[in-house]
Amino acid sequence: MTYFADIAPVTYEGPDSTNPLAFRHYNPEEVIMGKTMVEHLRFAVCYWHNFVWEGNDPFGGQTFERPWFPADTMALAKAKANAAFDMFRILGVPYYCFHDHDIRPEGASLSESNARLHDMADYFEDKMKSGPKLLWGTANMFSNRRYMSGASTNPDPDVFAYCASIVKNAMDVTHRLNGENYVLWGGREGYETLLNTDLSRELEQMGRFLSMVVDYKHKIGFKGTILIEPKPQEPTKHQYDYDVATVYGFLKRFGLENEVKVNIEQGHAILAGHSFEHELAMANALGIFGSIDMNRNDYQSGWDTDQFPNNAPEAALAYYEVLRGGGFTTGGTNFDAKLRRQSLDPEDLIAAHVGGMDICARGLKAAAKMLEDDALEAARRKRYAGWEDVDYLSPAATLDGIAAKAETHALDPQPVSGKQEMLENTVNRYV
Amino acid sequence: MTYFADIAPVTYEGPDSTNPLAFRHYNPEEVIMGKTMVEHLRFAVCYWHNFVWEGNDPFGGQTFERPWFPADTMALAKAKANAAFDMFRILGVPYYCFHDHDIRPEGASLSESNARLHDMADYFEDKMKSGPKLLWGTANMFSNRRYMSGASTNPDPDVFAYCASIVKNAMDVTHRLNGENYVLWGGREGYETLLNTDLSRELEQMGRFLSMVVDYKHKIGFKGTILIEPKPQEPTKHQYDYDVATVYGFLKRFGLENEVKVNIEQGHAILAGHSFEHELAMANALGIFGSIDMNRNDYQSGWDTDQFPNNAPEAALAYYEVLRGGGFTTGGTNFDAKLRRQSLDPEDLIAAHVGGMDICARGLKAAAKMLEDDALEAARRKRYAGWEDVDYLSPAATLDGIAAKAETHALDPQPVSGKQEMLENTVNRYV
Amino acid sequence: MTYFADIAPVTYEGPDSTNPLAFRHYNPEEVIMGKTMVEHLRFAVCYWHNFVWEGNDPFGGQTFERPWFPADTMALAKAKANAAFDMFRILGVPYYCFHDHDIRPEGASLSESNARLHDMADYFEDKMKSGPKLLWGTANMFSNRRYMSGASTNPDPDVFAYCASIVKNAMDVTHRLNGENYVLWGGREGYETLLNTDLSRELEQMGRFLSMVVDYKHKIGFKGTILIEPKPQEPTKHQYDYDVATVYGFLKRFGLENEVKVNIEQGHAILAGHSFEHELAMANALGIFGSIDMNRNDYQSGWDTDQFPNNAPEAALAYYEVLRGGGFTTGGTNFDAKLRRQSLDPEDLIAAHVGGMDICARGLKAAAKMLEDDALEAARRKRYAGWEDVDYLSPAATLDGIAAKAETHALDPQPVSGKQEMLENTVNRYV
Amino acid sequence: MTYFADIAPVTYEGPDSTNPLAFRHYNPEEVIMGKTMVEHLRFAVCYWHNFVWEGNDPFGGQTFERPWFPADTMALAKAKANAAFDMFRILGVPYYCFHDHDIRPEGASLSESNARLHDMADYFEDKMKSGPKLLWGTANMFSNRRYMSGASTNPDPDVFAYCASIVKNAMDVTHRLNGENYVLWGGREGYETLLNTDLSRELEQMGRFLSMVVDYKHKIGFKGTILIEPKPQEPTKHQYDYDVATVYGFLKRFGLENEVKVNIEQGHAILAGHSFEHELAMANALGIFGSIDMNRNDYQSGWDTDQFPNNAPEAALAYYEVLRGGGFTTGGTNFDAKLRRQSLDPEDLIAAHVGGMDICARGLKAAAKMLEDDALEAARRKRYAGWEDVDYLSPAATLDGIAAKAETHALDPQPVSGKQEMLENTVNRYV
Repeated sequence: MTYFADIAPVTYEGPDSTNPLAFRHYNPEEVIMGKTMVEHLRFAVCYWHNFVWEGNDPFGGQTFERPWFPADTMALAKAKANAAFDMFRILGVPYYCFHDHDIRPEGASLSESNARLHDMADYFEDKMKSGPKLLWGTANMFSNRRYMSGASTNPDPDVFAYCASIVKNAMDVTHRLNGENYVLWGGREGYETLLNTDLSRELEQMGRFLSMVVDYKHKIGFKGTILIEPKPQEPTKHQYDYDVATVYGFLKRFGLENEVKVNIEQGHAILAGHSFEHELAMANALGIFGSIDMNRNDYQSGWDTDQFPNNAPEAALAYYEVLRGGGFTTGGTNFDAKLRRQSLDPEDLIAAHVGGMDICARGLKAAAKMLEDDALEAARRKRYAGWEDVDYLSPAATLDGIAAKAETHALDPQPVSGKQEMLENTVNRYV
Repeated sequence: MTYFADIAPVTYEGPDSTNPLAFRHYNPEEVIMGKTMVEHLRFAVCYWHNFVWEGNDPFGGQTFERPWFPADTMALAKAKANAAFDMFRILGVPYYCFHDHDIRPEGASLSESNARLHDMADYFEDKMKSGPKLLWGTANMFSNRRYMSGASTNPDPDVFAYCASIVKNAMDVTHRLNGENYVLWGGREGYETLLNTDLSRELEQMGRFLSMVVDYKHKIGFKGTILIEPKPQEPTKHQYDYDVATVYGFLKRFGLENEVKVNIEQGHAILAGHSFEHELAMANALGIFGSIDMNRNDYQSGWDTDQFPNNAPEAALAYYEVLRGGGFTTGGTNFDAKLRRQSLDPEDLIAAHVGGMDICARGLKAAAKMLEDDALEAARRKRYAGWEDVDYLSPAATLDGIAAKAETHALDPQPVSGKQEMLENTVNRYV
Repeated sequence: MTYFADIAPVTYEGPDSTNPLAFRHYNPEEVIMGKTMVEHLRFAVCYWHNFVWEGNDPFGGQTFERPWFPADTMALAKAKANAAFDMFRILGVPYYCFHDHDIRPEGASLSESNARLHDMADYFEDKMKSGPKLLWGTANMFSNRRYMSGASTNPDPDVFAYCASIVKNAMDVTHRLNGENYVLWGGREGYETLLNTDLSRELEQMGRFLSMVVDYKHKIGFKGTILIEPKPQEPTKHQYDYDVATVYGFLKRFGLENEVKVNIEQGHAILAGHSFEHELAMANALGIFGSIDMNRNDYQSGWDTDQFPNNAPEAALAYYEVLRGGGFTTGGTNFDAKLRRQSLDPEDLIAAHVGGMDICARGLKAAAKMLEDDALEAARRKRYAGWEDVDYLSPAATLDGIAAKAETHALDPQPVSGKQEMLENTVNRYV
Repeated sequence: MTYFADIAPVTYEGPDSTNPLAFRHYNPEEVIMGKTMVEHLRFAVCYWHNFVWEGNDPFGGQTFERPWFPADTMALAKAKANAAFDMFRILGVPYYCFHDHDIRPEGASLSESNARLHDMADYFEDKMKSGPKLLWGTANMFSNRRYMSGASTNPDPDVFAYCASIVKNAMDVTHRLNGENYVLWGGREGYETLLNTDLSRELEQMGRFLSMVVDYKHKIGFKGTILIEPKPQEPTKHQYDYDVATVYGFLKRFGLENEVKVNIEQGHAILAGHSFEHELAMANALGIFGSIDMNRNDYQSGWDTDQFPNNAPEAALAYYEVLRGGGFTTGGTNFDAKLRRQSLDPEDLIAAHVGGMDICARGLKAAAKMLEDDALEAARRKRYAGWEDVDYLSPAATLDGIAAKAETHALDPQPVSGKQEMLENTVNRYV
């Protein structure tokens, strides 16, 4: 008997169902714009928040009582894995994600930690035969005190070297488990105070590290995508991978803009002062869109709240940008979301994902319909239509040449309504 | 008799002076680290907040009563200039800054506006013989309703063309008046809603426009620096020149990172979620530091408050980064600051600048002393000293090679205190 | 022919309508929980944003071109009123709201301003025979420079006296026009800097002024409700009527908690760090709920954006608290919302209100259904059910008495899941 | 040999000292405005951040290695106390503060926890013979999972009863140790979601609990002050003791405004959107000022950063309000501040306090001098001087009476400069 023993697999029951553990909108095989919802959404469940996190916050300790806690032995780690794959089965998700540190107990030495990781990968490999695939793997280089001053950006080169081993092994395991992406989130790649920080050197360290990660990917023949996950701050005062535009500049600087893409989290977008759809549109404009973490932040709490999405109109705007950009390739929709620490019951874990998946499904369907109806794009095309008749963006155009034309024609351009409210109303016809 | 008729030129009286219109710290000819304070700080007064702004805010109208308002004739524009140059004289500043729109009344046509700009430049040229130099010129492409949907990023190509003429003429005038920089602030280069915005196209338009600006600079032989002023939002919901890192990525994308630098404003840094010193350090790390707008934002008001600097420790941290980067070249310290709208008296204009200049002087002196004493740099060098013994950043290094070394040596790096509080205490010995 | 000449009255066409100027959800006479939607929602249109605001923002001037601008004569003021009542007719709203300053041109003297107000009230009285009723009147004591340092909290007692006249006349007119409430919003009742402010005295001034307003209400027999509108800041750095809880403390201090209620604006709630539903629930808990301004703020823009509501789930949570508290009595749903300044067309004014009214209607219907189904309340009652068996809140209970009981019974209370995600999913079944 | 064995007691060495473990400004026996600095500042060190916190944050675990960790036995608890009192001795502080939970290991039962608390109080009583006094005691009712849904506001009345015992015992111990105040911070007195919360009932529970606390104080003859510590959010989404004004309304509602005062923390003020000096001025205006927690928040990090104060001008403005209100009575200056988690060394604990105490000393001296010089108060008195000649605040005054006077005299009040920048410059003469 498992942790979720009496919970049946979740099925689609349609919008009128009042069953709290049924899908009302996510109908996996329903076809939308030529693809099933499974293929569009590519849902993944994360390992850490669901099976590792104990419910602590800065002012309080453990609230959850999971039978595998503290998971500091291989036996408990396997019990944890059993519960995890059981939940994946109940939810019917096609993917999951993990950090190395989530799945294996830390060893007494680097080598032992690595060895345990590979042992657990054997265990996972077996379970994955009948279970979900790996959307992405990653390495936790922020929890242990050795990383307190950074991972690749640490003032101590031994930490840089240690991280090389950690990432190499996490990539090896991700590759072996056929992960479709490998993610780097630089939770300690930043600073607490500029007073003790060599910003310029740390950026160089981080750039060189990422270049070596890309080289190693090619060396081992990993076909997945390398992803960076932007976040502006927390845990550090400032994190280098601040937002999509910042990551783009970093990639350009180190010549990696064609090798690395971004995994965008709604919550991190908000903490950076952006809407989620902004970050998605920006990544598409810059050609670096990769994957999403579909967990919202409370707009008014200034820390990372990692809540399950629950606002359908917001989800619609997000998937609209995903679809406009052509949809996911190797990426997908990961719930990097955690229960509120008062949600103690096993069924809360299931229900939270069911609700989140349904919101995404509603968003996807609304977004697809808006695109199919050309409800927004017709207006957008019309708004910029004047540009078809001019060549101002051609390499031959000059400032003084265009200026002379403006003066000669005595241009006096008149503003045209931007129609924001009408477009917002249009969206509300679909959500 | 002028607007400031009875106010004498401000002089240095030393820290014990209680004269509210005397410098207590800014001693122009005092030499610090081999340069006078004039040369270090390169103070500039802005034209717009002091002589154009009427004291309005979103909930209230004009509070200031300046004799040259509404300045809609050439005669009033000249009266305004007379007052401005009188204030520059009283303050003894070496520089000033203006938008085209600040100094000439808008004409009935583009050509008339341009002609008036050149006429006013004649008038300024004459006044500058005995007055301050021009730190930078710029063009206002955000106030008039024609720019409501953008300047170079407008959906209407006629606005793009109109802007070409505006910028060309502003550059011509800046060049003629021997301006040391030309600034672009994209107050409307952004969007109110993504629903009607083609983000990708607008970025292309903005990139092409900037490239033409650079080309035109070279064509006319302007030797000054082209500067972009980052700001995250306001007036628009999102502005493309969000912060220093974003501007860097934009410049890299269009191959302009060696042609364009940044003018960093403390208030805009804060609105973007950064400290001022962060933006300065980042610009130095990326090689695009240009100039500063030394006006603070209230940390807790979410709009652009443009207040005069008044916190000496903050000013010290800012000038510390300026000096660490080698100090200003063509840039300087511009007060893009405005009086509170209740500060009605002519002497308020003078006193606000005197206080701001003194705070900068205090900051500069503290920063210079910290550098001369090696008070912070010794600790910083020591913290990263381990990197001198490794070659992990060399092009030959590989992830698996370094990983193997970490494993072979059974690295177990131990954290070392970051000493933040002790470094903060060190700074407090100087401020 | 009027400003909206070719726009037909807006009618309910049902959810499948694609007519941008039709109601899809607001069906005025539809009965919900025993009342029509008209009676529940009590919609009001505001005069100021729609007919007075010119589209300016802190970085730009007028964008709107209304034929009655600048409305500085009585003839233009009447033309403005004609357009306003025409829009009220097209929208079919039962109420409107105004400031004195919105409807009459400022006179050369206080007496002339007052006289003009009464003349315009005559004009309105006539128009109201076939038009909407007055939800509330108010006085603008923040735009004119005389109020720059406060209205009733001004350091100059002459401003206090001036305000007495302004408010008296605005109340007289509101009374005459059968207004159902009278609102005070203290846009300048706060401070820019504590350095020049006598906080304690200013609170006394404001308390005394409000007491006199209440006395005057009774004197003239006005039966409407006196309302305070909380807002934390903007235009001032700090405003005294910060939020609902602050206003409650202020009312208690001056013994006015049974005389004055609050008009809660979603945007102001957000600027104070609260959700809208929090402020509504708090006002109900404290017994001071009055009315709402249904205009949202951008969560990520730090100033008052006054946008039309467009998120149905948010509207549902708001009306849920309104209905839980028993619904409106004299209050209603006012749109203190303004178009984006790029929305230039007359139809934009209509469409924005249609969209806002529809969102409110969706919210109301969802909220009513949740209440009727006992979907949330059953869980809430169960959660606190244990309190029925104890008398800890009785006046006779003591700390040591209860402590002794806890120790004697060796209490070891075990936490119970808060079920947040399941409740959020429940809400999503309704919205 | 103790944890700080080789660190000598910190002494005053004057502003020119470069000894990082010496006071440069805090000269305990120096007399300012008739009292010594010891008497003015009444410094206290907190037990929790210094001796209990392990350096964890939401993304990482323990960084500190203190020999008494995990302090889960009475022997380790005493070792911890030894280190604590050793640090108090080194710093020479006159006071300290603790939570019950900081000083005793949790027992297996409520009774055992209480018994251990009293045993540790015996131990402390002995150490206090030669050490600092107790500024305040308090109870931790937020860390253990039993409080996850609230303490006195818990839906489970058993938790309410459990808290009665916890607070009774913490008060008993505080009384026995001659604590000068007893503090309540409601870290879980709020909610995560309104959906499962009966806001009205929870406020009633909290009000009744506080009333019983006050009654119990009188019953046992405790002469100290009961203090509430406001904070807007974190750990919960919303906390009921939001800020000073909110707490005032709460106290008024339950008739406790003469019994309970506030302990104001700079960091919490900032999180609530206020400046520290605002909260101090407000508490003085409302007559509920009690004590301060002198730990700053990073203005740009949205969580509770609890940093040591390091900005002298800010400290000056805070102590200015403290002194204007008459200074501390039973309250004092507690450092509820924690090291950055990278500050690993014992000397970091000492240095952080030394720096913080020096900043407070600088602030106090500047504030006292400004008061003695009447540097700000003269301008403030003058600004409101007009009120001496009018009786508008008298109970006999009426709105229509004052209005008639305004009209009769044709009042046309003219604004007067608020002189904000000049006042800011004045402050800068002192800091």
